Amino acid sequence: MSKLRVAVLGAGGRMGSEAVRAVRAAEESAGDMELVAALGRGDPLSTLVEAGATVAVDLTHPDAVMANVEFCVRHGIHAVVGTTGWTEERLAALRDWLADSPGTGVLIAPNFGIGAVLTMRFARQAARFFESVEIVELHHPGKADAPSGTAVRTAQLVAGAREEAGLPAQPDATGTALPGARGADVSGVPVHAVRLRGLVAHQEVLFGGEGELFTIRHDSMNRASFMPGVLLGIRRIAGAPGLTFGLEHFMELDG
Amino acid sequence: MSKLRVAVLGAGGRMGSEAVRAVRAAEESAGDMELVAALGRGDPLSTLVEAGATVAVDLTHPDAVMANVEFCVRHGIHAVVGTTGWTEERLAALRDWLADSPGTGVLIAPNFGIGAVLTMRFARQAARFFESVEIVELHHPGKADAPSGTAVRTAQLVAGAREEAGLPAQPDATGTALPGARGADVSGVPVHAVRLRGLVAHQEVLFGGEGELFTIRHDSMNRASFMPGVLLGIRRIAGAPGLTFGLEHFMELDG
Amino acid sequence: MSKLRVAVLGAGGRMGSEAVRAVRAAEESAGDMELVAALGRGDPLSTLVEAGATVAVDLTHPDAVMANVEFCVRHGIHAVVGTTGWTEERLAALRDWLADSPGTGVLIAPNFGIGAVLTMRFARQAARFFESVEIVELHHPGKADAPSGTAVRTAQLVAGAREEAGLPAQPDATGTALPGARGADVSGVPVHAVRLRGLVAHQEVLFGGEGELFTIRHDSMNRASFMPGVLLGIRRIAGAPGLTFGLEHFMELDG
Amino acid sequence: MSKLRVAVLGAGGRMGSEAVRAVRAAEESAGDMELVAALGRGDPLSTLVEAGATVAVDLTHPDAVMANVEFCVRHGIHAVVGTTGWTEERLAALRDWLADSPGTGVLIAPNFGIGAVLTMRFARQAARFFESVEIVELHHPGKADAPSGTAVRTAQLVAGAREEAGLPAQPDATGTALPGARGADVSGVPVHAVRLRGLVAHQEVLFGGEGELFTIRHDSMNRASFMPGVLLGIRRIAGAPGLTFGLEHFMELDG
Repeated sequence: MSKLRVAVLGAGGRMGSEAVRAVRAAEESAGDMELVAALGRGDPLSTLVEAGATVAVDLTHPDAVMANVEFCVRHGIHAVVGTTGWTEERLAALRDWLADSPGTGVLIAPNFGIGAVLTMRFARQAARFFESVEIVELHHPGKADAPSGTAVRTAQLVAGAREEAGLPAQPDATGTALPGARGADVSGVPVHAVRLRGLVAHQEVLFGGEGELFTIRHDSMNRASFMPGVLLGIRRIAGAPGLTFGLEHFMELDG
Repeated sequence: MSKLRVAVLGAGGRMGSEAVRAVRAAEESAGDMELVAALGRGDPLSTLVEAGATVAVDLTHPDAVMANVEFCVRHGIHAVVGTTGWTEERLAALRDWLADSPGTGVLIAPNFGIGAVLTMRFARQAARFFESVEIVELHHPGKADAPSGTAVRTAQLVAGAREEAGLPAQPDATGTALPGARGADVSGVPVHAVRLRGLVAHQEVLFGGEGELFTIRHDSMNRASFMPGVLLGIRRIAGAPGLTFGLEHFMELDG
Repeated sequence: MSKLRVAVLGAGGRMGSEAVRAVRAAEESAGDMELVAALGRGDPLSTLVEAGATVAVDLTHPDAVMANVEFCVRHGIHAVVGTTGWTEERLAALRDWLADSPGTGVLIAPNFGIGAVLTMRFARQAARFFESVEIVELHHPGKADAPSGTAVRTAQLVAGAREEAGLPAQPDATGTALPGARGADVSGVPVHAVRLRGLVAHQEVLFGGEGELFTIRHDSMNRASFMPGVLLGIRRIAGAPGLTFGLEHFMELDG
Repeated sequence: MSKLRVAVLGAGGRMGSEAVRAVRAAEESAGDMELVAALGRGDPLSTLVEAGATVAVDLTHPDAVMANVEFCVRHGIHAVVGTTGWTEERLAALRDWLADSPGTGVLIAPNFGIGAVLTMRFARQAARFFESVEIVELHHPGKADAPSGTAVRTAQLVAGAREEAGLPAQPDATGTALPGARGADVSGVPVHAVRLRGLVAHQEVLFGGEGELFTIRHDSMNRASFMPGVLLGIRRIAGAPGLTFGLEHFMELDG
């Protein structure tokens, strides 16, 4: 079988340089792909064609991603995109380009962390079986927002699943509370943000029912943890023409 | 809508008496079922017919369960069965009875704990994404076997999923070890059994990959935790003719 | 050696009946004490003298405790007191009574849980070695206050130890936060209160420094967990004339 | 107050280079010390005298440490020693040198991790209050020994404290067990070793009593976590003439 010819866009950035390393390591170990181009800021997109890239990984910036992805789709290069900023308008434009290039696949993955994707999916599936649910996320003290975007997204997914299942509001007899003690209310799910020196990025989803607890925890220590997800995207995108939103669709989690 | 008319077999036992309580509580709260019979040892099965039961919950004993289930199926009473001891032979006999009563449903659930079912399913699904996996189960010191049956079953499911995905053996450079330090080997998955006064029944499945950990934990404090699973079975069995093995099939966990 | 002759006041209450059970169990197992009286509401205190009690355990009510303890001290009966409501005025009155009965000992223990006492002490001792500290307490959803009194007390002890050691404020770059996300501020220590069905009473103190975390966790499942502390108080109070405030003074935790 | 004049021996090694960084950072921030020498393999010890070092940190090798420490003591330079290999014979020799230089202090610290020291001390202190105790240590899969040395040492301390308090053997009704399921037996304390990709160095000491659990957990992510302990040693050794064995003696943990 011929190797996947991979290009990395944003190769000078923190995620991009990690992706360059990961593709090279996969070249050595699995041998099913090779790195044919690594583009930094200012490098011409024509390099992708010259290098014969079949899959491009975009880890650039919301300002650059639209031009990059349009170029790829118009040239039949599949794209694996971690760059954020995908509004409904942007998605509509992307769908138009793909309509003209029906064999090309684009994966947009807001999160390449397989553990994070599993956490969100399993939390959503478990939600309707438990009376109570709260989220505790724990990060290093340099983080600017609280709670984390992942925790907010997880809470919204859980809240949606509860609503769909017709669950009532969570039991809570709290009468007297210090301000903030019961966390932030995200669609009815309390979310607590802990900030400690020595932490990196961690999240616990705690479910409680009569006589039992069920907990899903994810600890992410560094950017290397995103690379298995990037490689999974690279390996699967050629077989998935059109737009795929979310890595979970490549993870075969049904059954 | 008419109420489900529920009978409990083994009503004098620990699980059975809990089920009687749970059905009565559901009668009060949800109002979608009513308890029409509670049979102890020696009570005649004909009571089920006289009481007009439409669903029977069997929480008896391997010695009694075959006669009970045969009676139910022959009389078109759906059965929700927690009693263990289902060999291939017994399942074959049950399938024969069901062939003659095609509208009747039987659920056999080795575990009614929703948290336990979720743990096993999610662990199996997550298994192929991580290089490493170990299980730590923790129980009260009166437990006779180690590891627990649930931990062994979980390890087997995880090992099967790893094999199916073609994963290599787990990384482990241990050269010098005290006997037992690395746990019991269950199909290549190390399982550790902790016994402490104050514990009830707990299990952690720990997955590890480059730069990330993913953990599923289940804490079960008492038999009440099995009742939501029993009620789920009661509510769904009438709509599922034939044999269903495992509560997860009623939990709509795909998608 | 002669046995300790123990009376329980408040024997009809939840804690008191547990104490009756615990003293009787100690009578059987260790054999170093015996239950000589169990007084409920309205029973005359003179029973203590008639029964020849040498130690009285008071698990009554703030309305009753002063008269009980005064009676004990005046009759030279040592007292182990779990009843709350000890204001500075009440303590002053108690000290006066004890001055007149110098051989008598009174232990007032706001918390008989040995795990809780250890948590507070170790948290206070560890506090000055870590840049960051937060507390997560988790309770059943029927609890009326948030955070728990124990969590607030622990936070205050930790904050006091940080101040004494001259530690600066905790690092926290949070710029954008949902209300409540960062918990309740107790003397500069964030405290988060989780409420879930299935929980009982749990507390985690999380410390973080460059490259390391240190966590102390206490799980309390029922009132039986207080009894080892009550028995410890009974065994030690005769050897500790005067007022002792806090079970930790009987736990020999130095060295 | 004059600054402490610090030299690092073994400055080219992994711990030593970290110590160089840490002393320099303390020079910037606290300003109470300065780095006056950083010696690698082969650099002459006379440099310590020429540089006017008042405290030397030895992070070298068992082959080199004796000559280094002898030189320091004979020249009145206080020493903070992380190098291992201290047999009774070596300690006797050190005590002889110190007898001739009574104002000089030497700290030998088998572990500079403050979290590890706290874990061992608190575990030892808590041990006599709980019926049950087990240790779970978790490390990266490249670790050669199981259990870790720290876990074995902790188990021995805990076992010693149990014996001193006259506690009986731990309750354990295990009748049927897979080999290894119940961990390694270290002086009667079961120790379980988990190895997972993504882990660094972690340890949990779990205590259990009737109705309660008490857990101490330490997570160590990198060598930077040892530096606060090294700096503490540097700051305190001048005030502690003679031999001090173990960082805990400088941590004022009584009271």
